[in-house]
Order: sequence, then C-alpha cells, then structure tokens
Amino acid sequence: MPHYPDPVHGFVIDAEGLRDWVDALIRRVGTPDDVAADVAEVLLASDLRGIASHGTARLPQYLKLVESGSLDPAARPRKEMGKPALARFDANNGWGQHAGRVATDDAIERAREAGTAISVVHHANHFGIAGWYAMRVAQKGLIGLSLTNSSPMVAPTRARIRLLGTNPIAFAAPAGRYGTLVLDMATSTVSRGRIEVAARRGEALPVGWAIGPDGSPATTPEIALRGALQPLGGTEETSGYKGYGLALLVEVLTGILGDAAFGPDIVGLFSKEGRPDLGQFFMAIDPGALGEPSAFEARLERLLDQLTRAPLIPGAPGPVLYPGQPEAEHAAKQARDGIAIDAEHHACLVELAQRYRVAFPTARAIG
Amino acid sequence: MPHYPDPVHGFVIDAEGLRDWVDALIRRVGTPDDVAADVAEVLLASDLRGIASHGTARLPQYLKLVESGSLDPAARPRKEMGKPALARFDANNGWGQHAGRVATDDAIERAREAGTAISVVHHANHFGIAGWYAMRVAQKGLIGLSLTNSSPMVAPTRARIRLLGTNPIAFAAPAGRYGTLVLDMATSTVSRGRIEVAARRGEALPVGWAIGPDGSPATTPEIALRGALQPLGGTEETSGYKGYGLALLVEVLTGILGDAAFGPDIVGLFSKEGRPDLGQFFMAIDPGALGEPSAFEARLERLLDQLTRAPLIPGAPGPVLYPGQPEAEHAAKQARDGIAIDAEHHACLVELAQRYRVAFPTARAIG
Repeated sequence: MPHYPDPVHGFVIDAEGLRDWVDALIRRVGTPDDVAADVAEVLLASDLRGIASHGTARLPQYLKLVESGSLDPAARPRKEMGKPALARFDANNGWGQHAGRVATDDAIERAREAGTAISVVHHANHFGIAGWYAMRVAQKGLIGLSLTNSSPMVAPTRARIRLLGTNPIAFAAPAGRYGTLVLDMATSTVSRGRIEVAARRGEALPVGWAIGPDGSPATTPEIALRGALQPLGGTEETSGYKGYGLALLVEVLTGILGDAAFGPDIVGLFSKEGRPDLGQFFMAIDPGALGEPSAFEARLERLLDQLTRAPLIPGAPGPVLYPGQPEAEHAAKQARDGIAIDAEHHACLVELAQRYRVAFPTARAIG
Repeated sequence: MPHYPDPVHGFVIDAEGLRDWVDALIRRVGTPDDVAADVAEVLLASDLRGIASHGTARLPQYLKLVESGSLDPAARPRKEMGKPALARFDANNGWGQHAGRVATDDAIERAREAGTAISVVHHANHFGIAGWYAMRVAQKGLIGLSLTNSSPMVAPTRARIRLLGTNPIAFAAPAGRYGTLVLDMATSTVSRGRIEVAARRGEALPVGWAIGPDGSPATTPEIALRGALQPLGGTEETSGYKGYGLALLVEVLTGILGDAAFGPDIVGLFSKEGRPDLGQFFMAIDPGALGEPSAFEARLERLLDQLTRAPLIPGAPGPVLYPGQPEAEHAAKQARDGIAIDAEHHACLVELAQRYRVAFPTARAIG
C-alpha cells in the first residue's frame, strides 16, 4: 500500500504525543487499558507509515460506532473452538485492533509448536491496516499473513454492481538487514481512498480503476464513487478476473471459513444498519521448523539484493523497491520529525478532543 | 487460468486412450508404475481443462530432461524434517507431479489432525498445473493452496530484466452444488504461452502485458518474447507493484522457505544448464475443524449464487463466472467428446510414440 503524499496544508504532531492522546481518548469511552493500547498502536502505525486513510482519521467513525452501541468498547475476544493449528475466535463485536492482536499472538504461539497456525475471527469490527498483524508476526521471526473481508465496493469481472470488499492481502517476512518485507494490498486496482484523493485533485481516472453505475469505465472520480471499484488487473482483457479471484480467495478464508458475514451481506463498516460481523484470518509460519531461521533471512537478503539492484526501465521514478520499503522509510522519518496530517484531519481530531475533553497535543502548522 | 480456444486444425483423441498412452510412455523411460500414474493424471487434467501449455504438449521437453540425466524418473520424494503442521520434502529431482501429489496428500492427512498443514518441497522439477494440487485438496473436502516458483520471466516494477517467475497461485475450495472453486493464476498479467498465441495470430499487445529488451512497453509479441513479462496489474500507474508483490510472496513461501533455488538463480526449467531445484508449497485447511463442513459449503454456495446472478456491464461476453467454471465445463465436454489438440502438438506426440515405440491412440482429424 503506497503511502499518501504529505499534505500541503496541515499540521505536524509528535508521534508519542498523538499515541498517548489516542490511548486516553479510547479509554475515555470505556475501553480497558490493554485494549486501548492495542487500538492506539495499530492506528499510530498506520499514520506513521503514511496510510492516512486507515489511522487516526477513522477515529470519528469508530467513536460513532461506540456511541451508537454498535461497537462494544469493553468486549474481549474468546477462543471458541479449533485444533492445534486452526482456531476460531469470537471478537464479540469489540475493537477489531485488539481482537486481531490477540488472535495473531495466539497463532504465533501455536505456530512455534506446530510449525504453522491460523486464527480466524468472526463478529469482528474493522481492524485498521491488515499489514500491522502480518508485521507483528514477522517481528517475532515468523512469516505472517493477515486477511480481512470488508464492505462491498468491488464489482467482479463482468458484474455492474458492488459485491465484494477490497479484501486486502497482507504478507510479511523477516528480511535480515532489509528489516521486514511487508506486502499490504487491496485486491482492487486501487482503494476507494485513492479515488477520493483523485476527486480532491480534479484528476481523470485511467481505465481499470472503476466503473460507473451503468457499468462503463468511470472516467472521473465522481462517476467512480457512484459506481464500483474494479478488481486488480482492471478489465477482463488485462486479467481483472485474477483480482476478482484473489478477492474471492480472501472472502473464502475470512467470511466463509470464519462463519462471519460475507460479500454483499456485509453492512457498511461505519453504518448503523447493523453490526459488520467481519471475518478475519491470521496466520504464522515458522521457518525455524525447517532449519536455522538465519538461513531463511540470508536467502531473502540475497533475493532482495538481486531485485533492488536491477537495471531500470526508461523514466523509472527511482530504483526497484521491495514491498513495504517506502512505508518503512516514511515511518522512520515521521517517528523522528512528527506525523504530518492534513488540516481537515486535524480539525476532526481537535473536535473529538473537545467533545471527549481529552486535551489534544500541540501541533505545528505547515504549508 | 482461462483455457485456450479449441484449435482450428488438429486432432481429437479419446481422453482415456491418451492417458493410457502417456502412462505407458512414462513407464518406458524407467518410471515406476505409481509415479507414472501421477504424471499421466496431472498432464491429462491439464489437457482436459484446456490448459494446452501445461499438459501433454510438454512431454517432449520432459523426456529430454530424462534423457539428459537431469530428471531422475525413478526418484521418490523423502520427508526430511518438520513439525506436525509444516514439513519439508526433498523431491530428489524426480517427476514433479509425483512429488507434488505425495506432498499434497501428506498435508491433507496432517491437516485432518492439526486443522491445517503445509508441505514445502525442494529439489523439485516442473509439476504441471498448480491448480491440480489445490483441487486434490478440495476434492477431499478441505481448502487447498499450491504455489511454485519458476524460471525468471517477469520484470519487477521499474526493472528492465527478468528476475522472477510467473509464480502461480492456485487455490481451491469445495463449493457444494458448484463443484469446486479453483483459482489458478500466474502472478504476471499473462503467461508466456499467451504471448506465443498472440504471435501465431499476429496480434498487437495491450500495455501492461510485457516490456521489450529496452524496458519500454512491448507492442508486438516478437518484442515481448525478447523482453520480459509484466506483473499482474501492468504498469506502476495501474498497480503492477501488487502483482510484483504477489510474485515475491510466492517466491518467499517456495524457494526461500523451502531452501530451493529462487529468483534469477533458477536455471531454465527445460534447459540443460543444471537442475531446476524448484521450490513448491502445498497447504490444506480443514473447515471441519471449525464445525460442520456442510455449513462451510452452504455459505460458499450462497456467495456464488450472489456473484453469478449479478447484473452485467454493457457488452459483457457472458454471465459472471466463478474461478474454475469455464475449465470445469471444458473438462466435462472433453472427457465425453475427446481432447482436441492442434496439429503441431499432435505431430510432436506421434514422433515420441515412434521414438519410444509406444503405439499412439487413434486420433480423429478436425478442421
């Protein structure tokens, strides 16, 4: 998931100050301390990595869900059933970030015994960036995979209407001196957030991003927002059915395997029509079960050397990157210099600070 | 993987007759009976499903590998190490189809105990269509995933040269009255075989399929064949870095995890420069560990109902399909009416029949 460009007009906030504020805000609405710490951690990771659409900018929506009784801030996930390498959790409609962290840690622990292990979760809420859970696995030295279904936004190849979510695939592996390899991708060509950015900038859309309500390619963001996103690959000619297949793979491993809501039955994540009942999937694979983990990382280093040193196509905007590289560089910069958010995002957070009476940290204006 | 169109000029051969001939041919070069049965089964499944590029058309190349001593027809895979849910096999450079079948069955057996299980394989040869192994898992009522790395054909986003294979992802699940859902996709926009078909037909290529040796988009098949395939998604603007990320995910779970060759170090599958030492990954997930398997299939039926009955975009060439549907329909037709192969393919098989003195079955000319 490429990070968004820095805002031209906005504010810069110290990362630790923002984390503490999120933590206090989440606790203020009845969230236990350890649960709030997970929510703050995942939202800050998103902001730090430059994925503005999935971090603190979602707080107004999350708090509306709490206020409406749709998200239970005090709920804790419960392991319901399973076998050593496959367990199901009931998230009990609590914070998605906490249920995801618990389910991930449980999979890591079982993978160290069995070699690999999966947790599936149902009755879940939105969990932020899928990549965080896969990265948590990789940071413990294992290979991580995390998946979630989501509210319908994508039209399968040939279909005119929204039937599947952008159903992301996140994959992470420990990569020696490269840190962590992290692929975190929607299975649509682009996210809805990217279309919204294009709308604000008045850009036209390339073929393959979205269709309009009549099923024709959407040439403007306005038409696209009333229509549906296209799966990765775009049209049928450019293999969009592969992205459709990947979205369906995610749906089978989350909603269908996890006995959660699925496909067009999922209500809007932030609607009040009902509870989302999302399905999520977390997996850990332990390279240590097959030999020295350091040998695994040495092989991955060699491959990333070969990829990142490749000769370039004409007009390449930079060297070959490995997945997660720009986000990791952005996170390191923002951890040091502060997190840049746009003015609208800042205003929303200040409003929350006032409504819930949790003093907002000092922010420095930019632009 | 969409099946190729039926040949205009060619031959039709009874499927069982062709299978028996392949079986006898493979045994003739020193392959034990049970190993030969696996090879024949996987190659015929590919021909039946209309994936002409991965079936009996590869026999001349396979037999060259046997003749040159690069593939050991009598070798058997050996389980080397692992834990209950993650094991590694050494394919001992034997037939890839047999090692893949053995590793898959072992994963199924362990998944029934543990809930999920993985087999990784190294020192492997080409195994045919990845989908066959995932389908075998689904036919036993579990969810299957199979992956393989392959010789370098794809240029990562921004790179000018071939560094990764078309690294397919195959996924299958039991789908009640829909039979089996089977996604079997290269992580490149198209396969090299599809470019070769375009060359024979004198077609131009859309942007996003391939680049030429100078790194510019290849507009003709001839330029593409001297250059590199592009990852799924095409150019950077249309999210080709996602396909690149998926190819890398496959490489990490096969070559890197399995301690096989990887990336640009893989010698051509059918070259004599050395042994391919491919890495492969087979996984089974048992929905029965989380409740009644019939409930899993009922949910998947409902989702496929919703997808396949969707209203269509203007000019859609047919209804919304589920992954594996056209191939399954084609296989049923060809099992009944015979397998159609083109004249060139037929001539190659007849030549093998003469060289190895295994009488070729009767074929009916078409076109």
